[in-house]
Amino acid sequence: MSGRLYVVGLGPADARWLTGEAQAALEEAQDVIGYAPYVARVPERTGQTRLASDNRVEIERAREALTRAAQGRIVAVVSGGDPGVFAMASAIFEAVDQGAREWRDLDIRVLPGVSAMQAAAARLGAPLGHDFCAISLSDNLKPWETVEKRLQHAAQGDFVIALYNPASRARPTRINDAFALLRRHLPGETFVGLAKSVGRENEEIILTRLDAAEGDRVDMSTLVVIGASGTRRIARKGARDWVYTSRQAT
Amino acid sequence: MSGRLYVVGLGPADARWLTGEAQAALEEAQDVIGYAPYVARVPERTGQTRLASDNRVEIERAREALTRAAQGRIVAVVSGGDPGVFAMASAIFEAVDQGAREWRDLDIRVLPGVSAMQAAAARLGAPLGHDFCAISLSDNLKPWETVEKRLQHAAQGDFVIALYNPASRARPTRINDAFALLRRHLPGETFVGLAKSVGRENEEIILTRLDAAEGDRVDMSTLVVIGASGTRRIARKGARDWVYTSRQAT
Repeated sequence: MSGRLYVVGLGPADARWLTGEAQAALEEAQDVIGYAPYVARVPERTGQTRLASDNRVEIERAREALTRAAQGRIVAVVSGGDPGVFAMASAIFEAVDQGAREWRDLDIRVLPGVSAMQAAAARLGAPLGHDFCAISLSDNLKPWETVEKRLQHAAQGDFVIALYNPASRARPTRINDAFALLRRHLPGETFVGLAKSVGRENEEIILTRLDAAEGDRVDMSTLVVIGASGTRRIARKGARDWVYTSRQAT
Repeated sequence: MSGRLYVVGLGPADARWLTGEAQAALEEAQDVIGYAPYVARVPERTGQTRLASDNRVEIERAREALTRAAQGRIVAVVSGGDPGVFAMASAIFEAVDQGAREWRDLDIRVLPGVSAMQAAAARLGAPLGHDFCAISLSDNLKPWETVEKRLQHAAQGDFVIALYNPASRARPTRINDAFALLRRHLPGETFVGLAKSVGRENEEIILTRLDAAEGDRVDMSTLVVIGASGTRRIARKGARDWVYTSRQAT
């Protein structure tokens, strides 16, 4: 058994954000496995098997990848962004934890990548320049009360907040629930940034404030940034404001 | 004035973590500016000016870079990791905010990179697989009480916690203060990971628990990860445990 499992971060959308390490793994892999839109971002190579699956089947996909690696194959599981941040790496290790004992002997290598919040922050300026939290609003796997508890502590702790998975077909309104909760803890003028499809042709960046933020402008491709007390806007002529979080706490 | 300022993330230590976008900017830049160890990681190019400075002078370095870009030069300010996460991007925009009005017209582009917590997480498994916070323990620019407040809310919110700047020459013991505070809020068996010099020759990964964590094993090159209730260890024969945070909240 000399297989290997790479868990590869493709970065958000644009191939310029791929690391050299990730690139090399994609070239070495015999099998490329992932959610279909991510697999589609990997250039096709002769002799390389491609297994594209639906978004909801992370654990099945993880088991398929582990099974193939255990058979001696070089497998790359691909994630958008960083596989370690709300993505496939956690599902892989969960499958190992619950799965065949021999999977613990596998050579599994997580290859980090630029996550959505980092690309969004780069477009905005430097909103994540000081202490921040990343919270997934998905309640597929955790109760909504857990999300509420974390939002509350993030607000009370004066963290900048990056919200992943702010909307889904099943629950399009949860971002509104999050905004409503945050309004109870934070001033109305708190910065809110909506970064849609960063790095894609239809990229759109919206700067607003908490008392004006509207959930219907948020879709599945949006990363939402909520500012902290140290977050500032720099007004510019004929261009979008820059946003940064001061390193000096108030 | 056709200058440009790139704020470039070099990733943590290993050049394999550099993105294609960052690589291209380093090749294009006429001036490379940064903390000396980061400048040293950029391959030398004929005709390119290199300005290496001390760690403590972020704002002066930012002003120097902005001044050169305003003179029409192509400037790259380099940061380890992601410039947007506890690094130079925030200092650049702070300097713009406080500086010459014409700096607001500059073409400033932040190029994201893999941050230290992501490389550390990749080595450990997937500890950042669910909701997490990033907190800098540096109290150069904020009062220690602010750090304490954030640690407390991060613990009460059951976030995984990534601690940046856990030690410094000026205050080597602050990581012990942080551990002591966290012990008042979290169970003794809470996972603690110390990831030293990730990607360098002297890389060292230590897995421990909160009731056994010792600050004297932490230095300036260490990224500290504190687990949440959903963080699990996978025991392996003859190899270091894998650590991941389950996507399912407890």
